[in-house]
Amino acid sequence: MLPKTDCKRMKKGGISCKPIVAFVKINNLATHFWKHRMSTTHRYTLTISCPDRAGIIAAVSGFIAQHGGFIVEASYHTDQEAQRFFMRQEIRADSLPFDADEFRRRFAPLALEFVMSWQLADSALKKRLVVLVSKQDHCLDDLLHRWRSGELQVDISCVISNHDDLRSFVEWHGIPFIRVDMPGNDAIAKTAAFEKIAALFEQHRGDCMVLARFMQIVPPWLCQRYPGRIVNIHHSFLPSFVGAKPYHQAYQRGVKLIGATCHYVTDELDAGPIIEQDTVRIDHGDTVDDLVRYGRDIEKTVLARALRYHVEDRVLVCGNKTIVFR
Amino acid sequence: MLPKTDCKRMKKGGISCKPIVAFVKINNLATHFWKHRMSTTHRYTLTISCPDRAGIIAAVSGFIAQHGGFIVEASYHTDQEAQRFFMRQEIRADSLPFDADEFRRRFAPLALEFVMSWQLADSALKKRLVVLVSKQDHCLDDLLHRWRSGELQVDISCVISNHDDLRSFVEWHGIPFIRVDMPGNDAIAKTAAFEKIAALFEQHRGDCMVLARFMQIVPPWLCQRYPGRIVNIHHSFLPSFVGAKPYHQAYQRGVKLIGATCHYVTDELDAGPIIEQDTVRIDHGDTVDDLVRYGRDIEKTVLARALRYHVEDRVLVCGNKTIVFR
Repeated sequence: MLPKTDCKRMKKGGISCKPIVAFVKINNLATHFWKHRMSTTHRYTLTISCPDRAGIIAAVSGFIAQHGGFIVEASYHTDQEAQRFFMRQEIRADSLPFDADEFRRRFAPLALEFVMSWQLADSALKKRLVVLVSKQDHCLDDLLHRWRSGELQVDISCVISNHDDLRSFVEWHGIPFIRVDMPGNDAIAKTAAFEKIAALFEQHRGDCMVLARFMQIVPPWLCQRYPGRIVNIHHSFLPSFVGAKPYHQAYQRGVKLIGATCHYVTDELDAGPIIEQDTVRIDHGDTVDDLVRYGRDIEKTVLARALRYHVEDRVLVCGNKTIVFR
Repeated sequence: MLPKTDCKRMKKGGISCKPIVAFVKINNLATHFWKHRMSTTHRYTLTISCPDRAGIIAAVSGFIAQHGGFIVEASYHTDQEAQRFFMRQEIRADSLPFDADEFRRRFAPLALEFVMSWQLADSALKKRLVVLVSKQDHCLDDLLHRWRSGELQVDISCVISNHDDLRSFVEWHGIPFIRVDMPGNDAIAKTAAFEKIAALFEQHRGDCMVLARFMQIVPPWLCQRYPGRIVNIHHSFLPSFVGAKPYHQAYQRGVKLIGATCHYVTDELDAGPIIEQDTVRIDHGDTVDDLVRYGRDIEKTVLARALRYHVEDRVLVCGNKTIVFR
């Protein structure tokens, strides 16, 4: 039997009793429906990674069912090489008789038993993005549009830049714009600048740092401080054309496709776990300027897709690879 | 006025006189129609590359029109960097009052004036492919199927391999299969083996050597002997994952797309002009074996497309890049 509180909630939603039977039916029928409107539904997203063994799914789904939890989306993956199991469950918050903190308290013993790395995200608390940008604004513009149109359900805590060019545009959105100068060849001053960025990230309680065409190399110590929380859009189909002027490199090499890569930043430059990639077809009629133009478009869409996956807790990191439950 | 012979031909084709007017109309209306059935129509394909200047198109199209030539497809491109002009014209053979050799003789002075590199291909003479293969047969199988179904209008002169595995399959097609052993570490014997391959290519009057997953490194002297005539299918989206086990590399790197590249072979290994590339999307659920399987499919289609472009004289080389008039 479902707990009393849950039964009450189901009634409130216009669903009559015989809760177990009704529940199974609704669960089957509703999955597709809920998946596509989940962004407006209060939900908890439970993501888990642990050593693979028998009984993990049963234990977790048993725990959720025991409390009447209504799962609207579930994904599983085993990495055979790493012998690790990954899962993601989206649960309707109103189907549970307690809040997120209580969920975490009750779930902790089970997590301990299975040696889980896990987290429970609450959709009522939007992820807070801190966006770093230099002068190129196509990714920032695209990101802010998706934010203000409501497509991307996040809070943008602030935009940090080493130039003032985009201040007015950012402030028009009512978002704080903070300039942090990046002195060219002064290593000590540069470290201080990145320490200021880290402090701003903490001060604004950032969940995720987005390098939206930020043309400075983030130092290893900062990357190590926020593993899986700094997202970079790279202007190439990695591992091709690492380094300067990728579109010139692609043009000179006569490739027929160019691409973009969105990845988590690690201390190894541009070699962190890839979240999303895509390519666009080019031909001999395209100049370097054309490539740069197509490049901007593919950068925007790849970053937007990757951020959406990240914000919805669809990306789990396994070594230097990602599992993306799209 | 059109020459008398040409007028006669047009009448034979059921088209009444007033040739110039009729000609223009037909030319406009027929372009699309002819483009899609050209493989069954006897035609000459004129490809030209020359220093860019004013008047090239007028001179060439004037020459063709002067002899009543009916152009069914025309493509032009200027490489601004190289300051070179590229063009390709397909002309209905029956619209001209002379044969290919006479065309070449009459066209030569104009070609000289514009310092052209040029050739006239006659569709009545199918290109002769010599296919090199080792043990993996997916590209060979695909190629032979396209050949025997008539999709790819070529002659396959012979198949050369360093193994006997595919002899029976090739011979079933009525195509000569020649084994040329590749001694592992004996450099002199290996040179002799490639000299034998070169001799076989000449003996079979090969137009194009296709490396259909031939797992041996073709020596520079052989590449230099046949520029733009040796086609290789590379099992990666070049320039990514050059070297051994590309699918393992891709898997370890966690990329979200894998690809294949078809290119002309030059003495710089795998860095010759790219004819065609494509990618296929993968995700965390795909094993290395899955990647290898998708890889085979993308290799087949990329090779098939590139060979079609090559055989139809749609590929013009400009430095280390190609112009592909698809």
